Amino acid sequence: MSRFARSALIIIDVQKAIDASYHSVQGPRNNIDAESKIARLLAKWRTDKRMIVHIRHDSMFAESAYRPGQDGNCFKEEVVPLPGETVIAKTTNNAFTGTLLEELLRASHTQRLVIVGVSTNNNNSVEATVRMAGNLGFDTYLVSDACFTFAKRDYFGRLRSADEVHAMSLANLGGEYCTIIETKALLRP
Amino acid sequence: MSRFARSALIIIDVQKAIDASYHSVQGPRNNIDAESKIARLLAKWRTDKRMIVHIRHDSMFAESAYRPGQDGNCFKEEVVPLPGETVIAKTTNNAFTGTLLEELLRASHTQRLVIVGVSTNNNNSVEATVRMAGNLGFDTYLVSDACFTFAKRDYFGRLRSADEVHAMSLANLGGEYCTIIETKALLRP
Repeated sequence: MSRFARSALIIIDVQKAIDASYHSVQGPRNNIDAESKIARLLAKWRTDKRMIVHIRHDSMFAESAYRPGQDGNCFKEEVVPLPGETVIAKTTNNAFTGTLLEELLRASHTQRLVIVGVSTNNNNSVEATVRMAGNLGFDTYLVSDACFTFAKRDYFGRLRSADEVHAMSLANLGGEYCTIIETKALLRP
Repeated sequence: MSRFARSALIIIDVQKAIDASYHSVQGPRNNIDAESKIARLLAKWRTDKRMIVHIRHDSMFAESAYRPGQDGNCFKEEVVPLPGETVIAKTTNNAFTGTLLEELLRASHTQRLVIVGVSTNNNNSVEATVRMAGNLGFDTYLVSDACFTFAKRDYFGRLRSADEVHAMSLANLGGEYCTIIETKALLRP
């Protein structure tokens, strides 16, 4: 049996809003096939009848494309939940804060988490959720090619590409809060 | 009255262990005067009788210099708590997880936090605590020159200097989880 047989796939904030142009004002995103990889993982979790949790960001900021009531709040086509699948709405960066995600995982005796989504380091945040998952004691896996981010200037004004931002975030997380893994390792039978 | 008159100074993991050589295997730290700046902030908070919280990391890992029972677990000279000052011990990266820090702040009606310490991005983590503080709704300030970090290789193996790692962490935090500020702005009368 796969060591992921009892793991939960947690898909973070893969909503249409992530394509809003303001996310890429400093430069384009990386991992342009991340959504298709997430879709393949989602298909496998469904086939294997493993736990799936869809996280939806409901921004409270008027100017956010993630604010409810707009098309941006909807899930991207590749990851639309099926009837009966769990959807947890959040209003902060971190999927554990102000939600019942931890209670849901504890109640179902789920100890291993596989996390994918956007963006790797910031905003609707994979990183904030992974840090919290690790600190809460979950055995947490982050799928490096099933998340992505955008170019960004650092505090001193140096422009970093999306790949550079992504790689520093993964380095901060791996080994300390989670194990970094690739999609292909999770798709093996 | 200063807008920081009712703020809490939260000093994270400024213990002798941070000088252990394994922290700098990829290259030296930055902000070599961070401890003296923290000491100046601590002196001001004491003079002004503002709230101070010392966070101590009690590592559960046998090989960690932060493990209790070793000299490394002791606070650095510049920030040794005075009798009567609050010390909160933690065992994860994040000072809010598994501690009563949030309860202490809520009970004292403290809404504004000023965070300093080590390391900016990782391990005994300023970043994990700042992300959580922001998500819990605290009005959080991070003092850019009163924290520091170490050189680190990113996920693709590129070596980044401590200043580069520090600057990317601050860019991820500022405006999203906290306001970045400098020591001198906090020392004004």
